[in-house]
Amino acid sequence: MANDLDSLRQQMRAVTSEIMQKVQERMELARQIGEVKSRLDLDVRDEKVEQEVRLAVIRQAAAIGMDRDFALRLLNTLLTESEAVQAQGRKSAAPKQTHLAIFQKAKQLEASGKKMIHLEVGEPDYSAPESVGRSLAEAFRSRQYHYTETRGIPQLRNAIAKASGVGEDEVIVTPGGRFAVFSAIAGLLKPGQELITVEPAWPAYRECAEFAGVKTKVLRTTLEDGWTPDIDELKSLISEGTKMLAINYPNNPTGKILDRKTMSGIVSLARDHGLYLLSDEVYSDYAFRQFDSVLTHDYEKSIVVSSFSKTYAMTGFRVGYAVAEAEIIKKMTRVQAVGITSVAEPIQHAALAALSEDPSANVRIMEKRLKFISSKLKEMGLRFVEPDGAMYVYPELPASDDISVVESLLEKGVAIAPGSGFGDSYSKFVRITACRPEDELAQGLEIMSSVIRK
Amino acid sequence: MANDLDSLRQQMRAVTSEIMQKVQERMELARQIGEVKSRLDLDVRDEKVEQEVRLAVIRQAAAIGMDRDFALRLLNTLLTESEAVQAQGRKSAAPKQTHLAIFQKAKQLEASGKKMIHLEVGEPDYSAPESVGRSLAEAFRSRQYHYTETRGIPQLRNAIAKASGVGEDEVIVTPGGRFAVFSAIAGLLKPGQELITVEPAWPAYRECAEFAGVKTKVLRTTLEDGWTPDIDELKSLISEGTKMLAINYPNNPTGKILDRKTMSGIVSLARDHGLYLLSDEVYSDYAFRQFDSVLTHDYEKSIVVSSFSKTYAMTGFRVGYAVAEAEIIKKMTRVQAVGITSVAEPIQHAALAALSEDPSANVRIMEKRLKFISSKLKEMGLRFVEPDGAMYVYPELPASDDISVVESLLEKGVAIAPGSGFGDSYSKFVRITACRPEDELAQGLEIMSSVIRK
Repeated sequence: MANDLDSLRQQMRAVTSEIMQKVQERMELARQIGEVKSRLDLDVRDEKVEQEVRLAVIRQAAAIGMDRDFALRLLNTLLTESEAVQAQGRKSAAPKQTHLAIFQKAKQLEASGKKMIHLEVGEPDYSAPESVGRSLAEAFRSRQYHYTETRGIPQLRNAIAKASGVGEDEVIVTPGGRFAVFSAIAGLLKPGQELITVEPAWPAYRECAEFAGVKTKVLRTTLEDGWTPDIDELKSLISEGTKMLAINYPNNPTGKILDRKTMSGIVSLARDHGLYLLSDEVYSDYAFRQFDSVLTHDYEKSIVVSSFSKTYAMTGFRVGYAVAEAEIIKKMTRVQAVGITSVAEPIQHAALAALSEDPSANVRIMEKRLKFISSKLKEMGLRFVEPDGAMYVYPELPASDDISVVESLLEKGVAIAPGSGFGDSYSKFVRITACRPEDELAQGLEIMSSVIRK
Repeated sequence: MANDLDSLRQQMRAVTSEIMQKVQERMELARQIGEVKSRLDLDVRDEKVEQEVRLAVIRQAAAIGMDRDFALRLLNTLLTESEAVQAQGRKSAAPKQTHLAIFQKAKQLEASGKKMIHLEVGEPDYSAPESVGRSLAEAFRSRQYHYTETRGIPQLRNAIAKASGVGEDEVIVTPGGRFAVFSAIAGLLKPGQELITVEPAWPAYRECAEFAGVKTKVLRTTLEDGWTPDIDELKSLISEGTKMLAINYPNNPTGKILDRKTMSGIVSLARDHGLYLLSDEVYSDYAFRQFDSVLTHDYEKSIVVSSFSKTYAMTGFRVGYAVAEAEIIKKMTRVQAVGITSVAEPIQHAALAALSEDPSANVRIMEKRLKFISSKLKEMGLRFVEPDGAMYVYPELPASDDISVVESLLEKGVAIAPGSGFGDSYSKFVRITACRPEDELAQGLEIMSSVIRK
């Protein structure tokens, strides 16, 4: 039998060597295809061809009794490397400027003595509720600064569960909405699987997917269509490997809220294809027309992400949460256990205090400011969709590209976010944030108007 | 030229199909090898054979002009799947009980009314410094609860840098030492690469590696060798794919501090093979004999992890940090930006306050308790190495296995950690924590003594 083992191992070595040889042949073909594409000025990536290859591999796997998930994982390794080989020698796109990069630049300019109007970062200027501060102090006094359950202290999970109409096992408290997105993507998807995002979008979905080795496919929406996603186009993007759809309404950066019919269409599509539906609802309190959480659609594979950051001006507390079925929460909890153990206990008590506060004054401020910004942008003659919610307006620039406008404005003491930070196709847009008092908004928009007119 | 493209794509499809065919042949061989191994009662994984295959692939890649990293990545995908195929049908090991699982169980028993003595969790019972509470309250009053730089507020990074004798760019503030470990492993290593841990070990290194698709190799140390790693054995574990070595002194769970000669040997080995050296020094203040940080060895690829949790009894604040070269910190910062944006600002101010406090009273308490535990364990006739530092004693049980002792003790109201939670080979050990007052320790150890004698 030990001889058997030796003989089998010898065969194993031979077949391994053949695999490597064939793979290298494939890479050589990829290189040649890359050259031809470059001469024809074609994109390296061709979703349609990839999709055909994927289907062929699935058929073959079924025919030869190969594990399908493994076959797709392997194919993905090959496709990713082929793309890299094909892209060699091509000019790479300039590194993208996101709103955060502009925020850091603005901060540096401020540090060197320049006065700055911050219309780039989604951080409300008003104060967190006083009860939050009291809770923080009380947590220290009562020595509530120990390890907690990974998914959060029961009191806070209970309060969130009650407010969301779900069970306590269907809630996890996370260090910010971002980590809820992170743990959903890393906990539910495998490397090589696909996530669909609806752009323009907060870059976190794509960043978390990239980190987890998950591919991102993009459904583009347009100003012309009022930022409403096209359900048929969305359907055409779904393939074998697609496992999650990430949406965000009220939307950052457009302020869009979908009507119930469109949302139902999205949920049906997710249901038909068994996709996780990651619904980032951190702006749900800033809704100036009817907004229904995805929870109202009763789809068992949805994950709602929320946060204390925006509603209660608690960005720097880094605390958010997710609501989903218990099995999903368990997988997210596992990621949280590996990464951070638990959210700081005093912070969880602060969040609990915030939940009892009424944010409606904040919401009124935000709505008033967004109306003000909209009126000013109309005066400038810019095209945009008036926001239904959230904290932003996303106008189209008349001519020049976003980065040059953003940089001219930085020099003049105004920071706004470039549209291309929310998706490759949006370099004609900029995002303006309503997180400063009206007189500052007026000043900033006045300067923006003068820069655009030039 | 478009015809060229079609023809190349046809060839591509053919070669892709051949690859899948060959891979499936390989899996069939793996299955047969698995059967033979099962009959011979051999382990599924054979490091030596894997190592040979790896070397053969590296040689072949060089010969046929294939990218070496890609070849190894691909091989790893194949090896992982082969292992899974070989393991099919085998009894899987019982799910491991870690100290955290026992902690959760003990908490549940407490919730149902049972009194518990907690000797399982590494969470000091004394209070955090009063200045920490004042700082927390002051941060709220002065509205310091906003997004900060991802790597942490400058004041805190400065203070840490000064204390560590490095530059401000060489520090990152993280949500606990755990996230420093996480971001080092996820930020510096690629899937398929290898990390070596020295066991017994805190399970986080292995958990983070698994999460990132990084393989873990284990250097076992023994009570007989006084928990000192064997440098030659360590050397023999290093292969092409090995990229990081994780060490932890003063050690959790053994309390060991290495002498300078052994540490120099480890650093030299890391240097010779270009390995990152992740040195978890969260217990460095709890050192009862000379302890030198790995920073004193001046190795440019070392990463020192530390935390405010243990020294200042701030476990539930979830704040730690890492010190490394600026380029390494940048890569860790990128992971932090994707996962959490930044550590909560009030928490960072609390940590800054803690840095000015003198922890020596805490250190004296811990040393005294560890001596007390040691004397009691000697009375029980158990074998163990007296701790040089940290907060634990790791004795060997006379006969029975750890889980049965741990469970009997739980019933009797004492929680201790099973040794096997720190590595597969340690089911004859348990870990006892010195984080409770001496009278509770005495009580708990008395009960343990009676359980063991049975």
